[in-house]
Amino acid sequence: MEPDPDLELQVAVAKVSKYAVSESGDTVEVIERPHGGLSLVMVDGQRSGKSAKAISNIVARKAVSLLADGVRDGAAARAAHDYLRTLRSGQVSATLNIVSVDLTTRTIVISRNSHCPVIVVHGAEGQLQLLDEPSQAIGIHTRTRPVITELPIVADLHAVVYTDGILSAGERYGQPIDAPEFVRAQLGTCSGETCARTLADALLTHAIELDRGRPADDISVVVVSVVARQQPDDVRRLSVRFPI
Amino acid sequence: MEPDPDLELQVAVAKVSKYAVSESGDTVEVIERPHGGLSLVMVDGQRSGKSAKAISNIVARKAVSLLADGVRDGAAARAAHDYLRTLRSGQVSATLNIVSVDLTTRTIVISRNSHCPVIVVHGAEGQLQLLDEPSQAIGIHTRTRPVITELPIVADLHAVVYTDGILSAGERYGQPIDAPEFVRAQLGTCSGETCARTLADALLTHAIELDRGRPADDISVVVVSVVARQQPDDVRRLSVRFPI
Repeated sequence: MEPDPDLELQVAVAKVSKYAVSESGDTVEVIERPHGGLSLVMVDGQRSGKSAKAISNIVARKAVSLLADGVRDGAAARAAHDYLRTLRSGQVSATLNIVSVDLTTRTIVISRNSHCPVIVVHGAEGQLQLLDEPSQAIGIHTRTRPVITELPIVADLHAVVYTDGILSAGERYGQPIDAPEFVRAQLGTCSGETCARTLADALLTHAIELDRGRPADDISVVVVSVVARQQPDDVRRLSVRFPI
Repeated sequence: MEPDPDLELQVAVAKVSKYAVSESGDTVEVIERPHGGLSLVMVDGQRSGKSAKAISNIVARKAVSLLADGVRDGAAARAAHDYLRTLRSGQVSATLNIVSVDLTTRTIVISRNSHCPVIVVHGAEGQLQLLDEPSQAIGIHTRTRPVITELPIVADLHAVVYTDGILSAGERYGQPIDAPEFVRAQLGTCSGETCARTLADALLTHAIELDRGRPADDISVVVVSVVARQQPDDVRRLSVRFPI
């Protein structure tokens, strides 16, 4: 299919580690797909800190390397599971999400191996869809496979993917987060640099506030947005920033 | 060494393909390093379009996969060379740059296998340093190795790395670019989202203007900046945007 020249893809990642832990146990990587588009891999390793980081790192590397070879997302998720289960004898789990923007099929492919739902918002009216079919983490059971949803690329499509630090935000203080409702309310105020950036930052900030400034777990948020074209040029842009 | 809490790392990538060619032959990938920090790999495959993209893609994947395993940058560059030279029998070349922000050694490591210089600007006064020691592209000769420069991480450090679409900008019209001078002049006006983003966008826009809106070659610009901390939180942020 011919690309629609009036659309723009925006991806935003925002990550923070558990309070008083220097290293997040989550790993998020973005790569170019060999036939166009990109894939985003988000892994939450069991527990937190160094051991969790080691797990999430090897799982993400395995998935990224297969996706970069052109392996389809479902097979990459299965392979990452088999790999972790073999390596750690089924003793260590991780959640795995893959979000791919496939410019060949003009779809967004969302793979879940996580109990966390994915929030999808469609259209100018902000119709909410929750991808929350039961789904297993990888690394433990036999023949684990991802739950996959494929969405056509159209304007005003937002997918919000996160690790369970979002799910548990505020729980300690009896003020659990309502992430879908928060996302829907935010979409009216998409301003600043890009919609995706504004939304990812707002959700992460909200979760940290509910945890009273001390995140009870590593938190990672990924937003993939398809919106009417904002930038006038054909430039591909990537930005990273963090304190060092 | 303990991290300096008052610094912020900014990375910006801006890419455009040659006029009337849909696919850039350049590949730029960013990955987390296993011991903290990140590495950025930029590859310009010989010629342009699909064949160049295939080459830059396999070279970048090889380098990224080694760096993700914790292989040191010089060895990753040598391996990428050996791999390409073996695969394509020494008939196909590519330029390769690796820029690593190594939080263990607190240095920025710049590896060049390219005739393109790297522009480094230090300090509040914007002292210019050109990394332009002769350096070979990979894939052709025996025992090719990178030219490596290691810079301590300090405030107000900017490294600007690009493919040869920048070098040749404006040549057709007898108005060759003076990239180092342009970069130095721009640094006074670091505004907008981040310094690195502003600088990368400005240099790419300037090059496209010198090519009168029709880039004569694929152009990729990477800026890595270390600046006084701008963001108040400990969040790691990554953003991508492009027309689809």
